[in-house]
Amino acid sequence: MKRKFLVAIAAASLYMGTASAMRPVTIVDQGSFFAGGTMTETPGRMDFQKPLNQHGQTMHGDHAYVFYQRPANAKQYPLVFLHGAGQSAKTWETTPDGRDGFQNIFLERGFSTYLVDQPRRGKAGQSTQPAALTADTYDQFWFSNFRVGNWDDASHSPGYFDGVQFSKTKEALNQYLRQMTPNTGPYDAGVISDAMAAIFEKAGEGVLVTHSQGGGIGWLTAIKSGKVKGIVSYEPGSGFIFPEGETPPPVKTTHPMGDLAANSVPMADFLKLTKIPIVIYYGDFIADSYTKEWNKDGWRARLEMARLWAETVNRHGGDATVVHLPDVGVTGNTHFPFSDLNNIEVADLMEAWLQEKGLAE
Amino acid sequence: MKRKFLVAIAAASLYMGTASAMRPVTIVDQGSFFAGGTMTETPGRMDFQKPLNQHGQTMHGDHAYVFYQRPANAKQYPLVFLHGAGQSAKTWETTPDGRDGFQNIFLERGFSTYLVDQPRRGKAGQSTQPAALTADTYDQFWFSNFRVGNWDDASHSPGYFDGVQFSKTKEALNQYLRQMTPNTGPYDAGVISDAMAAIFEKAGEGVLVTHSQGGGIGWLTAIKSGKVKGIVSYEPGSGFIFPEGETPPPVKTTHPMGDLAANSVPMADFLKLTKIPIVIYYGDFIADSYTKEWNKDGWRARLEMARLWAETVNRHGGDATVVHLPDVGVTGNTHFPFSDLNNIEVADLMEAWLQEKGLAE
Repeated sequence: MKRKFLVAIAAASLYMGTASAMRPVTIVDQGSFFAGGTMTETPGRMDFQKPLNQHGQTMHGDHAYVFYQRPANAKQYPLVFLHGAGQSAKTWETTPDGRDGFQNIFLERGFSTYLVDQPRRGKAGQSTQPAALTADTYDQFWFSNFRVGNWDDASHSPGYFDGVQFSKTKEALNQYLRQMTPNTGPYDAGVISDAMAAIFEKAGEGVLVTHSQGGGIGWLTAIKSGKVKGIVSYEPGSGFIFPEGETPPPVKTTHPMGDLAANSVPMADFLKLTKIPIVIYYGDFIADSYTKEWNKDGWRARLEMARLWAETVNRHGGDATVVHLPDVGVTGNTHFPFSDLNNIEVADLMEAWLQEKGLAE
Repeated sequence: MKRKFLVAIAAASLYMGTASAMRPVTIVDQGSFFAGGTMTETPGRMDFQKPLNQHGQTMHGDHAYVFYQRPANAKQYPLVFLHGAGQSAKTWETTPDGRDGFQNIFLERGFSTYLVDQPRRGKAGQSTQPAALTADTYDQFWFSNFRVGNWDDASHSPGYFDGVQFSKTKEALNQYLRQMTPNTGPYDAGVISDAMAAIFEKAGEGVLVTHSQGGGIGWLTAIKSGKVKGIVSYEPGSGFIFPEGETPPPVKTTHPMGDLAANSVPMADFLKLTKIPIVIYYGDFIADSYTKEWNKDGWRARLEMARLWAETVNRHGGDATVVHLPDVGVTGNTHFPFSDLNNIEVADLMEAWLQEKGLAE
């Protein structure tokens, strides 16, 4: 059997022209579904002979879309992956330079995976609210904000950070910038966390893995669903929630999107976050102190807020850990540690944490 | 080994709570990528300290998104699946009532699969052109247009056709209506077929499987790429292309979107479509003659046009076949034969055709 697998690996590598293909995985089930969502209706009575008149017709929207895979002999808890702002489930798939993302890495390690497009994004694009899509040009903003480098016209190049864990080929950058996909309706944390809770109703108990803006959604999901057994959050960017009366003031930053404010929730809700283990990871190129280098400063503010938040969770009896990757010897990471060049090392850290918390059995 | 697989099937069925789960498949490679697309730029010079000013910044858009899977011992030609109007690659995945769609069925039969979100749709949402999304309520129009039934207020029910191959559970209808996802930019057949040709450059020679509006894109793709070795088209809905000078007049119909016009291309382009085998399938509930039942009539017009088109291809030395499924004893099919209740039978027909044409080896 082993010999056959090796032949298969060689064939797959030739096929896609990549240096590294996934290890063969036997899939016993895979598929997709929509979860959550609502329905709107135009008042009036519909007439079959006038089908382009909207009176009496409905529209189903605001659901999440999920693609799941279950490997043979899967571990008990599936991993449910939620992307961040401007992204889709593509975040977790093949990396921009063509290597395995967390989807394949964790399938290979025996975990079921659920990849989500949140409501009003990607394959879950049908929104009950209208939206104006403006085709704006913000590649260089996102590139710098995601800490791949400081892109500036003066250098006529992307200005990659020294030691950054990101391929410098043109095609990797091309693939990376095409990962962005717009909101098809207003961003609404309540709508998204409702749909996420509905996913856990279908998937059963599992571990939620979030990225960036998805981090805030993750806390809300765990409040809404008792089926979230743990949370791994990569670089949560906003939506930190504190108990009413314990909410810190905004953290000042030079980031163009402004100072980072925290939100309040009733204590009873907050305490639900003390019942599950939570780990938060941040990458490299984050400032130590206030600086005009707005991208490094914006993430400094987020890392500071994450530490305040974890302290608050733990003070109330919880189990939240913040890991700044350079502090544990893992360097060069951007805002996307799970797809960076060292993502196997990043996955090893996550899997070790899952094992420590009894979530990888 | 067989015994182990049976155990795995049972586990998978329990897991999703469905009656039928996929047969275990060993995947030797899977992943995703973007293909084609362009880039726009706002004139001027960017300033790193003013990242929300668009001057000098770019945007990458108009690409297709593809998720591919390669099973062990895969057949030579992958199947590249393109959805229709208002849909995404979800079209080919789990059916609305939770059974295997063509993605799993053909993986199980040893084909590599490539599932596409076309430019300005789904995970390929970033468009270089703006769009206004209006959150319209058209569920009942689409339901009737897709020939699941004649939905009318008077009956207070969906009005399913007698014998329709569609589950009558509420959840199947809910999942079905949520499959729609909007254009995030103007529909542009040139942009889409460019991206489809770019997919074949990455995937290599393969068979293109299209649905509905994707049918017209399929013909254009085969003109642009010599790597399209055959086309299977389910219910092509528009974009039939004839050689200049041989274009028929529009086919009259009571469909609210109007009479069905054909397009013209230079003879040299048209002749490329005579070099590959093509099969076109239409389902049930299509009128025999002009009728005010606009949904059955719109598809009558399309079936008539498809027959005219195939005759033209064959008159010029091609190999195009139109199969009206009821004519071969396959009844009850909607506009989505590949996800209808009898989709195994529909897949059998497709696979037999691929075998006959030497495309399933």
